[in-house]
Amino acid sequence: MPHLSPDPSREQHPTHRPGRLTDPTHDISVPVTEIHLDDSPDGTPNAPVQVYRTMGPGSVPEEGLIPWREQWIAERDDTETYNHRGHQLLDDGRAALRRGAASQQWRGRRPDPLRATTGRTVTQMHYARRGVITPEMRFVALRENCDVELVRSELAAGRAIIPSNINHPESEPMIIGRAFLVKVNANIGNSAVTSSISEEVAKLDWAAKWGADTLMDLSTGNDIHTTREWIIRNSPIPVGTVPIYQALEKVNGVANALTWEIYRDTVIEQCEQGVDYMTVHAGVLHRYIPLTAERVTGIVSRGGSILAGWSMAHDEENFLYTHFDELCEIFAAYDVAFSLGDGLRPGSTADANDAAQFAELDTLAELTERAWAHDVQVMVEGPGHVPLHKVRENVERQQELCHGAPFYTLGPLVTDIAPGYDHITSAIGATEIARYGTAMLCYVTPKEHLGLPNRDDVKTGVITYKIAAHAADIAKGHPGATHRDDALSKARFEFRWNDQFALGLDPATAQEYHDETLPAEPAKSAHFCSMCGPKFCSMRISQDIRETYGAPVALPSPGMPVS
Amino acid sequence: MPHLSPDPSREQHPTHRPGRLTDPTHDISVPVTEIHLDDSPDGTPNAPVQVYRTMGPGSVPEEGLIPWREQWIAERDDTETYNHRGHQLLDDGRAALRRGAASQQWRGRRPDPLRATTGRTVTQMHYARRGVITPEMRFVALRENCDVELVRSELAAGRAIIPSNINHPESEPMIIGRAFLVKVNANIGNSAVTSSISEEVAKLDWAAKWGADTLMDLSTGNDIHTTREWIIRNSPIPVGTVPIYQALEKVNGVANALTWEIYRDTVIEQCEQGVDYMTVHAGVLHRYIPLTAERVTGIVSRGGSILAGWSMAHDEENFLYTHFDELCEIFAAYDVAFSLGDGLRPGSTADANDAAQFAELDTLAELTERAWAHDVQVMVEGPGHVPLHKVRENVERQQELCHGAPFYTLGPLVTDIAPGYDHITSAIGATEIARYGTAMLCYVTPKEHLGLPNRDDVKTGVITYKIAAHAADIAKGHPGATHRDDALSKARFEFRWNDQFALGLDPATAQEYHDETLPAEPAKSAHFCSMCGPKFCSMRISQDIRETYGAPVALPSPGMPVS
Repeated sequence: MPHLSPDPSREQHPTHRPGRLTDPTHDISVPVTEIHLDDSPDGTPNAPVQVYRTMGPGSVPEEGLIPWREQWIAERDDTETYNHRGHQLLDDGRAALRRGAASQQWRGRRPDPLRATTGRTVTQMHYARRGVITPEMRFVALRENCDVELVRSELAAGRAIIPSNINHPESEPMIIGRAFLVKVNANIGNSAVTSSISEEVAKLDWAAKWGADTLMDLSTGNDIHTTREWIIRNSPIPVGTVPIYQALEKVNGVANALTWEIYRDTVIEQCEQGVDYMTVHAGVLHRYIPLTAERVTGIVSRGGSILAGWSMAHDEENFLYTHFDELCEIFAAYDVAFSLGDGLRPGSTADANDAAQFAELDTLAELTERAWAHDVQVMVEGPGHVPLHKVRENVERQQELCHGAPFYTLGPLVTDIAPGYDHITSAIGATEIARYGTAMLCYVTPKEHLGLPNRDDVKTGVITYKIAAHAADIAKGHPGATHRDDALSKARFEFRWNDQFALGLDPATAQEYHDETLPAEPAKSAHFCSMCGPKFCSMRISQDIRETYGAPVALPSPGMPVS
Repeated sequence: MPHLSPDPSREQHPTHRPGRLTDPTHDISVPVTEIHLDDSPDGTPNAPVQVYRTMGPGSVPEEGLIPWREQWIAERDDTETYNHRGHQLLDDGRAALRRGAASQQWRGRRPDPLRATTGRTVTQMHYARRGVITPEMRFVALRENCDVELVRSELAAGRAIIPSNINHPESEPMIIGRAFLVKVNANIGNSAVTSSISEEVAKLDWAAKWGADTLMDLSTGNDIHTTREWIIRNSPIPVGTVPIYQALEKVNGVANALTWEIYRDTVIEQCEQGVDYMTVHAGVLHRYIPLTAERVTGIVSRGGSILAGWSMAHDEENFLYTHFDELCEIFAAYDVAFSLGDGLRPGSTADANDAAQFAELDTLAELTERAWAHDVQVMVEGPGHVPLHKVRENVERQQELCHGAPFYTLGPLVTDIAPGYDHITSAIGATEIARYGTAMLCYVTPKEHLGLPNRDDVKTGVITYKIAAHAADIAKGHPGATHRDDALSKARFEFRWNDQFALGLDPATAQEYHDETLPAEPAKSAHFCSMCGPKFCSMRISQDIRETYGAPVALPSPGMPVS
């Protein structure tokens, strides 16, 4: 896997260095971050800690990443170029049409898109079901420190997905499923109100740096197509979208003017670009709409409300439901995964677990099976806003009805009274839902309900959700999940301050907080801290106890790399 | 209850106004915050929402609060002034001794301290057990919107406490117990490294403003006594301490030089000042110390390590355990509550729920019963650092062994890998532990493990813990707990932006975040927001659905005031 020369300035901390896990037999190599540690006070060296790395090799935004996965795709000999749809000016909105171009065109590398050759299916699920072990599967097995047969069998059963559009060969395969590490998705995207392509690309890079496992581009304003092109070409992580947003732009925002043909065309446009998974609100059935009338907050999903509005206006069934099999055929030809949208999710804790929500879930279960019949990968989206005592029911019900298809939830927020802190209200619910089997968590930033996340918000959202995901991994007893915790705790107990910072999810912030109270450099090797001062140090007394009663503790030996 | 004239600048938001809940029959009046709301778009008025208020009537720091509870105490006719210990120069440390005074003396009102007359017990538990309903009990019943008999019976059974030292008549009674709203404690305090009295008083005021139900003064540096005097005289909320910190100052920080006499003298000094509850690490028994030797992080409680160190050095049992009954007699004479410290709590998730921790809990259960034999109020402290799947066991075990005595936990943090974000790692554990019965949560700020919290950290810590406490109240099905959530959700759905801010835990921050993206004033009444823009507004479509299918939702009628 080619990559740029290591650039120390990309790392989170000077002690972090890019490393590789290798499977030489199959010529597979997976990036990790190695955190190098100081010796213990008694001179014992501490082995570097390897942690999961999502930030990719780095790219020049105008050029994009190297399409290193092309070879794996080509070697399967089941894809071809074709007379493809290509980029049209209207794809970028009316402003681009007037100007004759998007505001910041993509001039980097862009080969003709691939599609499955006639009669072939190119999804990882398809291979897995036929017993084929792909390099993508080996890559994620190495990354997750598990047997590749677990990866294959979970994919074959539909209990896990590897989002990996054949037209996004720049991405590093990752797996979403309850048997694996809990993943975090970050949403970015411009809107009709504010926008800039380069800001969005910078947010992608930033989100991946802090640990986002996937990214959703939720842009709704101008230059949608081109913004997405820049993002995908620079993204080492899978990219998801909600195609209905762009379809609606194409009909000037008039939901009633939407048609299956316009939607289908938009989906193909995005399949050709390399979108790895798409949110499809096919479960918002016409008969479910009245179930939302008595809610406190009605329908809060944008996609859900667009389709409900369309369905009401035309007095027809949701066209995503009626054309679902056709959509499956398209997805199967590019290996795009469904993210079955929960258009009727509750928008307040008052509406949680109600008839509308669970009616839609029944339909999502039906659609999961229909997608599987096409060997198309599926995950199912979940809420939203749910009081803590009703969270577990959500994931258990989804897992049962959808036969273990990965659950992908937004939070949920466990209270509605803290706008400005919804990364926290939702991380509480996210940890609970992940603990019981949710495979991927969609982050929520402090700006939720209030505005568009800026760079700081994206970072806060990702780190908050890394905490939730990791806490759930520990609670699930995921092998090796506590390795980083234990190394940090040992560093803390031994007053290795720099190691404590380095092992944290945000080394610079930890160090900054420390230095506010005790700025002097020697303090970082001092055997006390600002909380107690030198006289009261409990850890020092505790070390005396250890000298009296026991030998130094041997930590568990380094296990799998974990986030 | 007297108070200063309402000062709008003290409120969190211009729509917030001080109000009262009254029980005219018993001449009781409890402060609440009334949040005044705009009309709905269809012209329907929205009733003000009343929420629990902790910020007190406000004071001039140099003068302190009005001791309005004096009359209730006097009317019981069971206390008296006496030849009291009084303030000594050494109480403020050696710097004060050199100077001949504390750096910033207390010159406000300070009557002679009271003590129970000989043979009397003045604790709320004592009254409750004899069937006496005190004004303090009526005050908290009104505050919690419950029957006063519930308050009395829970106090009598030891399942709740009202921390209310007779020498802190400035405080507004509040109750800590699993049958009531979950409470939040904020820690402040200078240390040997940094300090300032007025900063600490400002932090108290600030913490109470954002919703802290109690405050612990954990000062360890100079001017300990006088800092505490300023705090107590200005505190509308109960104040707790850890007396061993000050006792250690008195012996120049040499733990081995501590004696029961010095400790006892410090406790009496603090009882006379009005400290409402004290952390006492009487469960750190000599035989438990070796159980910590194999831990990753040994003993991390300051008090626990001091007493373990003393016990080892003298090869004697912990003097707090051997003198526990004497301590009970003192506490009974002032109505000081025990907070039985968990000196052997885990300092890392690796050490959670281990033999040392649970051995100490057995002893805390024994001590609870011994305190109850003296009619002394007790709560029991808990961890700390606990992985999510081991959290519930902590509270269930404590509740069973300690016969329902209120549990008071620090977090717990569910992972160790996020220094700088431990308000979040711990809020996750705090919500879980409160949901299963913890009565009060000790906040954790972003500076935990790194430095001393500043003003912003205190606010972030309190608000984060109000979220945890409130989410747990909802999960427990506490009556009326969702009233504020529902009002906020309705405001959100109706695009009443100002109401959405006003109903949040931090109105100014919510508004600031909103205004970053959409600063214009008209945007706050706009029927869309920056996330979707005008064309995509799901809430607007949803309102169309409601017009087609259903009547506007009637929200539950205003119930109890909740935070």
